[in-house]
Amino acid sequence: MSAVYYHGGGRFTVGDGSSQEPGPDEVRLDVAYCGVCGTDLHIAHGAMDARVQTPQVIGHEMSGTVAEVGERVAGFRVGDAVVVRPLDTRGETPADRGFSHIGRNLKFLGIDAPGALQASWTVPAFTLHHLPPGVDLRLGALAEPLAVACHDVRRGEVAPGETALVIGGGPIGLLIALVARARQARVLVIEPDEGRRALAREFGLDAFDPQDDLTRAIGDTGAEVVFEVSGSAAGILAATKHASIRGRVVVVAIFPEPKPVALFDLFWKELEVRGARVYEPEDFEAAIDLIAGGSLELERVITGVEPLERVPALFDELRAGRSAMKILVDCRA
Amino acid sequence: MSAVYYHGGGRFTVGDGSSQEPGPDEVRLDVAYCGVCGTDLHIAHGAMDARVQTPQVIGHEMSGTVAEVGERVAGFRVGDAVVVRPLDTRGETPADRGFSHIGRNLKFLGIDAPGALQASWTVPAFTLHHLPPGVDLRLGALAEPLAVACHDVRRGEVAPGETALVIGGGPIGLLIALVARARQARVLVIEPDEGRRALAREFGLDAFDPQDDLTRAIGDTGAEVVFEVSGSAAGILAATKHASIRGRVVVVAIFPEPKPVALFDLFWKELEVRGARVYEPEDFEAAIDLIAGGSLELERVITGVEPLERVPALFDELRAGRSAMKILVDCRA
Repeated sequence: MSAVYYHGGGRFTVGDGSSQEPGPDEVRLDVAYCGVCGTDLHIAHGAMDARVQTPQVIGHEMSGTVAEVGERVAGFRVGDAVVVRPLDTRGETPADRGFSHIGRNLKFLGIDAPGALQASWTVPAFTLHHLPPGVDLRLGALAEPLAVACHDVRRGEVAPGETALVIGGGPIGLLIALVARARQARVLVIEPDEGRRALAREFGLDAFDPQDDLTRAIGDTGAEVVFEVSGSAAGILAATKHASIRGRVVVVAIFPEPKPVALFDLFWKELEVRGARVYEPEDFEAAIDLIAGGSLELERVITGVEPLERVPALFDELRAGRSAMKILVDCRA
Repeated sequence: MSAVYYHGGGRFTVGDGSSQEPGPDEVRLDVAYCGVCGTDLHIAHGAMDARVQTPQVIGHEMSGTVAEVGERVAGFRVGDAVVVRPLDTRGETPADRGFSHIGRNLKFLGIDAPGALQASWTVPAFTLHHLPPGVDLRLGALAEPLAVACHDVRRGEVAPGETALVIGGGPIGLLIALVARARQARVLVIEPDEGRRALAREFGLDAFDPQDDLTRAIGDTGAEVVFEVSGSAAGILAATKHASIRGRVVVVAIFPEPKPVALFDLFWKELEVRGARVYEPEDFEAAIDLIAGGSLELERVITGVEPLERVPALFDELRAGRSAMKILVDCRA
């Protein structure tokens, strides 16, 4: 029974995990797989040391099975395949205006509280979603990033026949592109990395370099919806440039500092620029439906599966520039 | 019968106007009053010389009466009091996606085609709105800027009981504040100029200096809707800072160049930043209803009424820094 601990300063160790008996409203899970997210890598760079209390078990993109059920928990039984929506929303306040998923006192499991990079994980039952029978638990571990994409596409109100421009073809950008296409949009992915463009094309997506003639590729009307997933200064300028009249621009990427935005485009074309952060329960349900449906060929985004013991070395490799789309960690005891 | 002509380079003259017989779908108007807008002053600074064909009659905030009616025009009779919605939308294309008021080929009367600073003005009948009987034509000349405010408030989806923050207390900011209050919002105006704050207070509005403790003034939740009307770098940063979770920020001001925007605020609070430009017919109807209703005390925004012959000197004074809220020009022959 192992767990990965983060100690601050970019340092990880693998040690003994604990098996914590669930409280009345909790469930103890046997974690199967846990994906490595950009946020985890951000933590590994030490960039979130002010927020993360150490030692901390990080990780939040998981799948697993129910191992033990608290006495007041209904709807979940030992052996059920589940994923966790890693948001502890119990600190909700009126100032959150009902949007508890982005509430002021939100705790993110795997950042502000123990996460999933351990064999045994005890969580509040309200964070759980069932995986349908027969779903590969490796694909189940993609439910969390896919829920991000479902939330982003919902924020963009993507409609059938619209053109959706996805700026940035990393894991989240790729998933957004796949979800937008599943919503019957015409999708174009903009990505400077040739390997990532090639992967997008393996999915049958149209992928372009930022230096290409995007205006021509997109067409005369512009894109009804644009997703800014690159976090780059050029990306947010391109987003408003290529949006259609009354187009929607969804800001998915995290921009730590203010960046120049072409506010004239907002005015002239009456654009709507919408921030999107994490997900709501319905986004998890939509993601699970897409996984269970099997049409997205999500196996292709999994770069590899690594054993839990390899996590410290894995973060070393990622910090050194190892190229990866989605790496899963096998957390099974 | 006089007209004001703009010749480029900031130069205006007053000369003989023409009385142009209306075509089959046109109406000839006797112009009563025409307000001076920030855009007119922008033209007077020479900043729009690349766009304005000279000599040109500018002006677009008018009221008047119908003098002559084209043969195919229905619904308007000689003597009717009217205002003009100065948008020629006849060049609409599919790429406009039905939003003809911001269409690519939109012509703005008074910029791209002759305007209202003349005694006699011939316009397409589809641009006309009736003023109800008994409405003071000086107040009628405020319909155009008030329609801007109605459009902005509609874009902001201001709801009763919400807090609306208006950043910038010039003519448009003040009108937005009045319309938002008429929609039963709690309104705060942020304006560095003491005279403008004092005028806002004459209307019973709460007005603050940007240096005041705005967080305290607004309250813990933040503002559900923010209007950025200042066009300043500090204004757009304050707009996202003070917006509530899932708040709406309406970009009303024209920012000619990209400005730093706190995109992190958009992400963290899932804000919606919406551009707003001119108006749609229903905004003119809403503005006319508000004028006719009489509750806004709009007389107070009228700084003074000047004769047409004074327009060249008036622009000199405004360029030299004369302080004014709304100056009307009496265009009557």
